[in-house]
Amino acid sequence: MDERIHEHARILVEWSARIEAGDDVVVQVDEDAHELGVAVAAQLGEKGANPVTVYRSGEMERSYLSSHDGEFDQDPDHALSLYENADSVLSLRGGRNTSAMADVDGDIRQAYSKARMGVHEARLDTDWVATVHPNRSLAQQAGMAFEEYQEFAYAAILRDWESLAEEMQRMKEILDAGSEVRLVKESTDITMSIEDRIAVNSAASVAYDSHNLPSGEVFTAPYDTEGTVLFDVPMTLNGRHVRNARLTFEDGEVVDYAAEAGEAALAEVLDTDEGARRLGELGVGMNRGIDRFTDNILFDEKMGDTVHLALGRSYDSNVPEGETGNDSAVHVDLITDVSGDSRMEVDGEVVQRNGRFRWEVGFSESES
Amino acid sequence: MDERIHEHARILVEWSARIEAGDDVVVQVDEDAHELGVAVAAQLGEKGANPVTVYRSGEMERSYLSSHDGEFDQDPDHALSLYENADSVLSLRGGRNTSAMADVDGDIRQAYSKARMGVHEARLDTDWVATVHPNRSLAQQAGMAFEEYQEFAYAAILRDWESLAEEMQRMKEILDAGSEVRLVKESTDITMSIEDRIAVNSAASVAYDSHNLPSGEVFTAPYDTEGTVLFDVPMTLNGRHVRNARLTFEDGEVVDYAAEAGEAALAEVLDTDEGARRLGELGVGMNRGIDRFTDNILFDEKMGDTVHLALGRSYDSNVPEGETGNDSAVHVDLITDVSGDSRMEVDGEVVQRNGRFRWEVGFSESES
Repeated sequence: MDERIHEHARILVEWSARIEAGDDVVVQVDEDAHELGVAVAAQLGEKGANPVTVYRSGEMERSYLSSHDGEFDQDPDHALSLYENADSVLSLRGGRNTSAMADVDGDIRQAYSKARMGVHEARLDTDWVATVHPNRSLAQQAGMAFEEYQEFAYAAILRDWESLAEEMQRMKEILDAGSEVRLVKESTDITMSIEDRIAVNSAASVAYDSHNLPSGEVFTAPYDTEGTVLFDVPMTLNGRHVRNARLTFEDGEVVDYAAEAGEAALAEVLDTDEGARRLGELGVGMNRGIDRFTDNILFDEKMGDTVHLALGRSYDSNVPEGETGNDSAVHVDLITDVSGDSRMEVDGEVVQRNGRFRWEVGFSESES
Repeated sequence: MDERIHEHARILVEWSARIEAGDDVVVQVDEDAHELGVAVAAQLGEKGANPVTVYRSGEMERSYLSSHDGEFDQDPDHALSLYENADSVLSLRGGRNTSAMADVDGDIRQAYSKARMGVHEARLDTDWVATVHPNRSLAQQAGMAFEEYQEFAYAAILRDWESLAEEMQRMKEILDAGSEVRLVKESTDITMSIEDRIAVNSAASVAYDSHNLPSGEVFTAPYDTEGTVLFDVPMTLNGRHVRNARLTFEDGEVVDYAAEAGEAALAEVLDTDEGARRLGELGVGMNRGIDRFTDNILFDEKMGDTVHLALGRSYDSNVPEGETGNDSAVHVDLITDVSGDSRMEVDGEVVQRNGRFRWEVGFSESES
């Protein structure tokens, strides 16, 4: 077996999920994540943990949902108790066809999700971690050759997470102490308040309240946004391509928007509810292992030299007890490339210029 | 998808497991039983049952066990509660390599089995059914081409179970009413008592206390065996080929044995414990969909025109309340071919001669 798969499993079990002897673990294996499953099983054996392996098959789910009348029982006991009694859930994503459920009726899907809400919440109450096993289906989605995609994905996953976590801690401390963030680049000059908000150091470990491997971003929940921002990283929004979206904020709300492609998709998001016109997240990508955009948000938003803003719901972890963040049914991340001529300031001090952080070689205090 | 797979799934869910709306079902899918899993999921959706899908991978299990120190936790809560809360368990057997766990230490395997005894028992307390998805690995084990094996397996599985169950009921009634069974053929003249014992009509359905698909045998628990029997169907016993085993019984116990091949393997079984020298089962194969021996006990012992006797443990279902059957750590089925010159008598009346049952065309009361 490819040595990288073993290393991936080691990082997942040790760094990300912090599995210990006696832990009751659910391993969710997608149809084409078998090899990572084998490597994870070895790690769990070494730790003395107790795995139950669940099969996640898009084809089986499609088959089940398509023949069901849509009147689902609420949270069946056997499923609920499995997750309620689990300490950790490791999700090894990697199906054989990202469109495996393309023809399943949307209402049926939604009804099923609702009927499994308690199971879902029980899963979120564990030390869960989701990761991706780079396979051919995901390579195809990213528009890459298989080996090329493996190199891409493992560069993002097989990092020295401890030292990246230390670096990200600097950014967290700056954002925690700061009151106002300003981002300036081509067609962009936007400010937002982050006063009293708590930044999360998303270091791909449950110890950092971070549940994705790879990760590598620091994010907080901004408000009172003013100004204009250009999102020049292309993305797919509800199946439609969005390119060069531009948003203008006044008093924290979007008052104007445009896009070179996908403007209607953007409009739909903004019209969801009131909260969809306000920001729920400011995230700073810090994973330099990710070297290109693949239209997969799990990777794109973590990429070094990017900043993302999300319309909609904010995360509770960013908001102090007693306060409430932005509420919405949506959370849509939009990404801007800061590798070129750009600067991010916190309370007037430049923290990142042209992609370089202030603690990095090559950072310059002033423009020139 | 092959229409036979859908039909297999329908028989499994409707006839065998009797799944109803609201049933909480665990579906155990082996590595290479995916297609049957998809067809079963459709049946479960149609019924309105609630599946949780567990992945059974020999490679993952090998990997886990091989890296474990062997000090397993006893029956972890998440696994136990999953099966305790399940109404039914459907096991879809079909790995990719029947030797996937060949190099796992026997002591580790045993320790793991012991540590999961409660989980195992919780599974047996459900309406469980085990079946086989005919795949290439199983074809190879049977020494057949893949399509040939599919035809073989589906001929055994896709039967009119209702009418076979009715036919088998006749045999059950004869055995229930009978006191003594005598089997006579080449090198064989053996009698055993079945007085007060209860025959099971193993009709591949939980409604008949039968948990394998295919099935198709009627079995009971004999005792006080006398005489000699030749087992001329070849089999593999603990990895060793056994051919033409011959056992002689006195007062219910084996007093002499021989085999043309595998005599040592036979001796090991007989030496396990006291109960291993006595019979635990007499079974009459009645599934005429099975037309050849494949060295897979699930099929071989159900084949029409065969009778099998098992050394060792008897099943509780054959023994009336208050009585105890034969106790042993082993249960080893040995098969004799009754298609040729042979007869089985119950209380002196011929029930099967040269493979024909007394209610079948071609049966003759006397030799002639």
